[in-house]
Amino acid sequence: MCAILEEAPAEGPAPRRIRLGIGDDAAAWRPSRSHLSVIGSDALVDGVHFRSDAMEARAIGHRAMAANLSDIAAMGACPVLATVALGVGPAAGEDWILDCYRGMHALARRYGTAIVGGDIVRSPATLLSITVVGEVAPSHLCTRDGGKPGDLLVVTGPLGASRAGLEVMRRSLDLDDTTRAAALRAFAEPEPRIAEGRWLGRSVSLHAMLDCSDGLALDVSRLARASGCGATLLDIPIAAAATAVALAAGDDAHRYALEGGEDFELIAAIAPRALEHLAERFERHFGRPLIPIGRLDPEPGLRLMDTDGSARDLAPSGWDHLSGEWR
Amino acid sequence: MCAILEEAPAEGPAPRRIRLGIGDDAAAWRPSRSHLSVIGSDALVDGVHFRSDAMEARAIGHRAMAANLSDIAAMGACPVLATVALGVGPAAGEDWILDCYRGMHALARRYGTAIVGGDIVRSPATLLSITVVGEVAPSHLCTRDGGKPGDLLVVTGPLGASRAGLEVMRRSLDLDDTTRAAALRAFAEPEPRIAEGRWLGRSVSLHAMLDCSDGLALDVSRLARASGCGATLLDIPIAAAATAVALAAGDDAHRYALEGGEDFELIAAIAPRALEHLAERFERHFGRPLIPIGRLDPEPGLRLMDTDGSARDLAPSGWDHLSGEWR
Repeated sequence: MCAILEEAPAEGPAPRRIRLGIGDDAAAWRPSRSHLSVIGSDALVDGVHFRSDAMEARAIGHRAMAANLSDIAAMGACPVLATVALGVGPAAGEDWILDCYRGMHALARRYGTAIVGGDIVRSPATLLSITVVGEVAPSHLCTRDGGKPGDLLVVTGPLGASRAGLEVMRRSLDLDDTTRAAALRAFAEPEPRIAEGRWLGRSVSLHAMLDCSDGLALDVSRLARASGCGATLLDIPIAAAATAVALAAGDDAHRYALEGGEDFELIAAIAPRALEHLAERFERHFGRPLIPIGRLDPEPGLRLMDTDGSARDLAPSGWDHLSGEWR
Repeated sequence: MCAILEEAPAEGPAPRRIRLGIGDDAAAWRPSRSHLSVIGSDALVDGVHFRSDAMEARAIGHRAMAANLSDIAAMGACPVLATVALGVGPAAGEDWILDCYRGMHALARRYGTAIVGGDIVRSPATLLSITVVGEVAPSHLCTRDGGKPGDLLVVTGPLGASRAGLEVMRRSLDLDDTTRAAALRAFAEPEPRIAEGRWLGRSVSLHAMLDCSDGLALDVSRLARASGCGATLLDIPIAAAATAVALAAGDDAHRYALEGGEDFELIAAIAPRALEHLAERFERHFGRPLIPIGRLDPEPGLRLMDTDGSARDLAPSGWDHLSGEWR
């Protein structure tokens, strides 16, 4: 969500059934006393968020759907349905449309999500706007604003592989086949953490959650700020493919993880006393660890703990959707 | 909805809670046993569906929201919330965005609908993609496919004024101030028929309903075809402003009404024996008539009854969203 909409005129009270409006990964409303529905929207434009001349239509569809499903996962909710608005640019023919749709559909279907409608229109540039609706028990809704100072921050997986895949596409790098394939797959076919989000959302020790879509630094800053806290990052888990690609490219793998985004792992703030037990159960359930990355602080701002134990300020950087630039 | 999505691969069964998928004005699902939610999406592109150089941003926002609320009205549902994806073209500044948003927000608010989120992205062309969610008692859901041969077709108001407004904008016409203002208002600030849709949806004698968004001929054809029928139009109610503008422009006012679209009146198929009573109650409630326009036939196709009592075939014509042309 963009700041300009948050600042736009919202005269009068929100209708009574709206539980959560602009500002989180998704909004929530109560269709009835016992149910909570959540809704999230994302728009992706050719040349800004993806390049139709450099990526397969199917992957473009997959990634767009993944981003939206990930927003629902970050609420602790189960996705139910999606609508798709597709603006078809001059270069996109019927095959392109169908392949893109197939990419969206295959991923959505894997998570029991039906594409129930939408719109296809001619457009000067190809673009995708997806809206996903999910459902969650009212007591399991996870927002980004419930973190408390002292909470431990965790992620559901290592980061940076998606950005590494982008570098592999852009540059000619000397890589082994396994690394190349892993990086490209992370970029083209990221997996939203639906089951992980629902599982974490059921824990009373989880105080806040969002998905890592725009880069760890920016997304942790968002969670911290929404919770009225700051944050210190103690450790940044870097995906193996990100380390290998960064090495071949002469880049800093930390930056892939901190600023790359689109890994769609979940970031959560957890009560400190609960972490050990929760992480143990998480690993037993999902077969991979819940990774501690830092903590929420009473002081605002974002800090990175260096290896010598000193903390330095970190500018929250990542992908700015409105400017279409890294910042 | 576009045919290509209806034909796209939909392997496997739809998730159990989806009650109505692609093909109607909106889709419907059951968040719980006693509740039904509906969802509809529309995308509008600058230069295809509107012209940002010829219309005020506020009116563009209003019209886009009206089109989406109208889809919800056509299901007999009450709109609850909306998400907005806004692609901001090079020519649109912050003022443009805020004015457009104000237009959407003012109309949505009038119908108790909260804009709960969305996305703003830079884009080569300005575009708007809106998704509206509404709610309806399961027994009051109105689809377009329940019409029966012999049903009478009605509309909630006279047609053609929106198209007349478009002509007033495009051409220099000799018109009195009242006509000019009425036509421009019909074009720039069309009103979705939310209360009318909910009221009609509660009648057991209403068999099918949709909104008149792409022209009477095309929309009646859609209702008839979805219901496995054909239709004969006996009378076409033309708005006073449409008659006056067509006269000044040397056009056929019938074409404004038949092909113009975007009047957002509702078209319904009603059991013949119920019409008199329903129309009387409608007029008492809304202060204007429910206007009979024709009937559903067992034979497929669309016919227009001429003044001499003979019927001639009518090609379903109106706005084709994918080609961006009248057809």
